[in-house]
Amino acid sequence: MYSTVCETDRVTTNSPATPGSYVEPGEFKRDTNYITTRITADGRDGFPVERGSYRLIAARACPWANRTLIVRRLLGLEPVLSLGLCGPTHDARSWTFDLDPGEVDPVLGIHFLRDAYLRRFPDYPRGITVPAIVDVNTGAVATNDFAQMTLDFSTEWTEFHRPGAPQLYPPELRSEIDTVAKRIYTEVNNGVYRCGFAGDQQAYDAAYDRLFTALDWLEDRLSRQRYLVGDTITEADVRLFTTLVRFDPVYHGHFKCNRNKLDEMPALWGYARDLFQTPGFGDTVDFDQIKAHYYIVHTDINPTRIVPKGPDLSGWLTPHGREKLGGRPFGDGTPPPPPVPAEVVGRK
Amino acid sequence: MYSTVCETDRVTTNSPATPGSYVEPGEFKRDTNYITTRITADGRDGFPVERGSYRLIAARACPWANRTLIVRRLLGLEPVLSLGLCGPTHDARSWTFDLDPGEVDPVLGIHFLRDAYLRRFPDYPRGITVPAIVDVNTGAVATNDFAQMTLDFSTEWTEFHRPGAPQLYPPELRSEIDTVAKRIYTEVNNGVYRCGFAGDQQAYDAAYDRLFTALDWLEDRLSRQRYLVGDTITEADVRLFTTLVRFDPVYHGHFKCNRNKLDEMPALWGYARDLFQTPGFGDTVDFDQIKAHYYIVHTDINPTRIVPKGPDLSGWLTPHGREKLGGRPFGDGTPPPPPVPAEVVGRK
Repeated sequence: MYSTVCETDRVTTNSPATPGSYVEPGEFKRDTNYITTRITADGRDGFPVERGSYRLIAARACPWANRTLIVRRLLGLEPVLSLGLCGPTHDARSWTFDLDPGEVDPVLGIHFLRDAYLRRFPDYPRGITVPAIVDVNTGAVATNDFAQMTLDFSTEWTEFHRPGAPQLYPPELRSEIDTVAKRIYTEVNNGVYRCGFAGDQQAYDAAYDRLFTALDWLEDRLSRQRYLVGDTITEADVRLFTTLVRFDPVYHGHFKCNRNKLDEMPALWGYARDLFQTPGFGDTVDFDQIKAHYYIVHTDINPTRIVPKGPDLSGWLTPHGREKLGGRPFGDGTPPPPPVPAEVVGRK
Repeated sequence: MYSTVCETDRVTTNSPATPGSYVEPGEFKRDTNYITTRITADGRDGFPVERGSYRLIAARACPWANRTLIVRRLLGLEPVLSLGLCGPTHDARSWTFDLDPGEVDPVLGIHFLRDAYLRRFPDYPRGITVPAIVDVNTGAVATNDFAQMTLDFSTEWTEFHRPGAPQLYPPELRSEIDTVAKRIYTEVNNGVYRCGFAGDQQAYDAAYDRLFTALDWLEDRLSRQRYLVGDTITEADVRLFTTLVRFDPVYHGHFKCNRNKLDEMPALWGYARDLFQTPGFGDTVDFDQIKAHYYIVHTDINPTRIVPKGPDLSGWLTPHGREKLGGRPFGDGTPPPPPVPAEVVGRK
């Protein structure tokens, strides 16, 4: 009954899981039902923002979870919100803490992330997803609503932001960020999955055209400005980055998003490298885990489970030249310090 | 019992089909047993070179068959050796003439190429392969020994070479051509299959390293000279070209040969475009059939049978700048005239 979800979330045509939704035959449709309780400053949903009360459960492989890793770093929430990391691969039951000693999360004391969902809802019927935030006092998931999660980091956890934390969701830009982020979500973040999980050639062809239409739009937009909205890094950039960084290693081949590689689109490639080289972005990215996850978990499109050795990733550290477009990455703020040793990529 | 073979030829570890051969666990090993009778000027194997007595059966999809299409064009053998073309996809039984009216070859009168093999050997036990040359008088396959076939076009069919036909296998260069072609065969032509059909991660990793070691050798060699051997087009170039032209559309993604695309290796990409734009090469290439073949036939590595829309192929016609390296494409000869109308790519 359980399905394990990050990008493995696959609901097909007119599934009962998405009542009332219509999709074209063969088109991939993401289940967008999440646990929508929120962790807020005023605790109105029963989950008040508090130091040390919650544990963020992520996986470096997953683009949706990667957003939370980046925003937590940029805002300096590490001392107040601990981090548990699931390994890149899993079976149909659940993400697991297979990277930890004894394969058990040292704080929650569980192997299957599923157990934290069942602690909240004993009959939890939907996918076991990352990212999730678990209440460490009860061991139950507080929320897995990934889209709201990073916004709440910016707007509800302000008491605990580090000095110099950037404004990722400034009030005066929210309308534009929301508009851009919506198009990025439907056309790019989810667009690559629409290609990779298309049920037939027609659905794939349409998904491919839709994806590259959006990438052409972004290529044009980013040829004229350093960041997506305003002149500083915002939530919109975080959301685009996690898809771009996976594009050449995974989506280009595995999901057949292959009109061109990302590194053939000069503005997008420069933009992606600019962010990758910005503290808080590239230092959350584990290419080995990313590739292992997609190629090993999706046996219906890669039955051999063989993980490609390519592409050559050395280009990510080359000069991007985006400074000439101006912009102030952190606005009036400052870059985050290096990751704490336990969270350096490669350590887990 | 029959397997249909072009690149779908898959013999795994220590298969009984290759008695005595040892291969590493998981490594792809090609069955190299062919019908080795030859069509020669003196007819010593019972198949003398004659005008109109034979029909070349190819498929535009197949790189081994593509060699014969190119050499037949370069040498001007079209008037004496007719051409039948199988479609890009097939089932486990046989390549078929599904592109012809009624799905029957108009000369041989058969739907399954297999029937021409059975006419020769009623118990033919091996793969039904293209290219094959069929004796039109008996309807039986004379040979399917693809490696010998193009050499014999150059050395046995000389009586029927067009005026200005190039010397693709000149006596004074045969030793060097053989040496280079052997390495290209084991490391590149077959090397991409060794990646794509690897049985496990270890075999794939080794195959990938071996392939790119060879491509780096070729990149270096071709940065200093326009063609592989001597200063004109030879058999060696034909053999390398048919793999290179499939690299970005198929091998890069489908076979996980993805350290980089071909178009990221400047000398090889220039060389491949130079040949593509040379009469007799690019005019034999049908990218749609190539992509359809691999992605639809190999359901064990692409179970969805969805064919990628990419990559963008417009770069094949861009200037290559290789003239600066000198060389005389056809030596003392001349380029072939355009393909006869019935053989223009896209017609079938």
